[in-house]
Amino acid sequence: MADFSGKVLALAGGVGGAKLALGLSRILPPHQLTIVVNTGDDETFHGLHVSPDLDTMLYTLAGLSNPETGWGLAGESFRVLEMLNRYGAATWFNLGDVDLATHIRRTQLLGEGATLSEVTTELCQRLNVRHRMTPMSDDPVRTFLKTDQGDLAMQDYFVRLRCEPTAAAVTFVGAEAARPSDEFSRALDEADLVVFCPSNPLLSTGPILALPAVRERLGKGNPARLSVAVSPIIGGEAVRGPAAKLMTELGHEATCVGVAKMYQDICDVLVIDEQDSESAPAIVSLGIRPLAAPTIMNTEEDKVALARLILELGGGFQHDE
Amino acid sequence: MADFSGKVLALAGGVGGAKLALGLSRILPPHQLTIVVNTGDDETFHGLHVSPDLDTMLYTLAGLSNPETGWGLAGESFRVLEMLNRYGAATWFNLGDVDLATHIRRTQLLGEGATLSEVTTELCQRLNVRHRMTPMSDDPVRTFLKTDQGDLAMQDYFVRLRCEPTAAAVTFVGAEAARPSDEFSRALDEADLVVFCPSNPLLSTGPILALPAVRERLGKGNPARLSVAVSPIIGGEAVRGPAAKLMTELGHEATCVGVAKMYQDICDVLVIDEQDSESAPAIVSLGIRPLAAPTIMNTEEDKVALARLILELGGGFQHDE
Repeated sequence: MADFSGKVLALAGGVGGAKLALGLSRILPPHQLTIVVNTGDDETFHGLHVSPDLDTMLYTLAGLSNPETGWGLAGESFRVLEMLNRYGAATWFNLGDVDLATHIRRTQLLGEGATLSEVTTELCQRLNVRHRMTPMSDDPVRTFLKTDQGDLAMQDYFVRLRCEPTAAAVTFVGAEAARPSDEFSRALDEADLVVFCPSNPLLSTGPILALPAVRERLGKGNPARLSVAVSPIIGGEAVRGPAAKLMTELGHEATCVGVAKMYQDICDVLVIDEQDSESAPAIVSLGIRPLAAPTIMNTEEDKVALARLILELGGGFQHDE
Repeated sequence: MADFSGKVLALAGGVGGAKLALGLSRILPPHQLTIVVNTGDDETFHGLHVSPDLDTMLYTLAGLSNPETGWGLAGESFRVLEMLNRYGAATWFNLGDVDLATHIRRTQLLGEGATLSEVTTELCQRLNVRHRMTPMSDDPVRTFLKTDQGDLAMQDYFVRLRCEPTAAAVTFVGAEAARPSDEFSRALDEADLVVFCPSNPLLSTGPILALPAVRERLGKGNPARLSVAVSPIIGGEAVRGPAAKLMTELGHEATCVGVAKMYQDICDVLVIDEQDSESAPAIVSLGIRPLAAPTIMNTEEDKVALARLILELGGGFQHDE
């Protein structure tokens, strides 16, 4: 096994992404890892700026996350939301009391002129998260879905309507004018290994890849860099969330081969689950090296093992170089 | 006993004011009572608009207030504040979880363009408060104290520094440009009985009286109106809070006679506590009719009894008229 001494850029969305990022953070020292998180899911609730994917990552890395859901905080209570409901506010988005402190603090600091990156760094420091996590952009990008129930903001679709509408298109409003955050941009320049965490390729890594020039800067053919993706689709189903349903509705193949096609221009290696090993030839034919391995991450050991496998790929690549 | 059928305008600040207002609301139907509440204590905490006196009144009238403190809510928890503290926010102002829902909702509605009056009406309706309570103004007025520890905002002085600094002056920043709220202005025109609740005359009714033309519009000599104040000073001490200390520091006499002097131009009757009955001649000499009665309000019966006494004064006045 070759030790990996380079810099890692991990791109992540929600729960699956946070699991692998946690694994990476257990192995890599802080200066070797930058975690870039989707903000296309961000939404304003009750006048507060909520960043669901940043929060999932924050709570996961801080050891505070709810182990049953993967999002939210362990031992949450919902007294504020109950009272907001009594006041007639729309409370379909489940915000816990402790979680609300994050949104209140973030909103306050943003209101005082801090960037989302600065706020994220501040929250991480306060919760003793030493690895660098950063929003994909400090500019607003909002994921919308065109569906048979109308145009829906991401949380409307995902939480309120439980992904039930049939989607015809996904758009990232604001993406064209948004710039990658400074940390993201630096990591794009410096990374020796890029990791696409097992997140929804349409809704989680999609917004990140929609930022100007990001796809180009991540493109294959950089002799000094390896790009490894982990398929969030196993046996034709998403480990969680609407990835498979949405891929089908939008004309993609809801398999790890479909994932490979979406990452074809930016991915050198696709880690697929061992139960999908028969898809390997189809992935090879797309110019991507498949690697079959256990990819379901239930325990912390699972997360660390998958992270170690990916870092070994990076180390082997460095060694060959 | 003469029944009182006219309109009552009650001016109130914090806990003492809310107690008498509750008593009035137990006797009067909603259309006969308008409660005008001090907003000079309002402050922004964590980016949220907190109106301590409006909240005390709201929770009191809604039957939700903490019976031990008189402010805040019964059965509160403080999980949001603990997390805000972990995030490095200044958490010396004690905001409970359920209470925070009020501030979140208020801030959201204000942010959407509602006036503080409109927000107050909305919150009241949601909590089934049928009597009309209104902020003294929809324009910002902030009480500051000039002290030996510098210029202090009201909550800084009152909560953070526990009223320990020695005050030299009280100012109401914004009062000159502020207009009384519509409900207050209407009540100023229509009231048959004005009640100065037993609130701090410097910090609670002071800001209300500092609004343009309010003192003049409340002035004595209106043959169709009776003005009754209740002294918050009993036996030379405030029932609660810094009223007596502050009156002394600012050169007032910390007695019910001192209160009478502060209300001399606007008050027909001053209800003083029965233990202060020897002060009656001094009050008479100021052109105010003193009425000695039990004024300490511990139980709901106490509150209703004091309210009834005041309404009887009003009824007698109507009858004489």
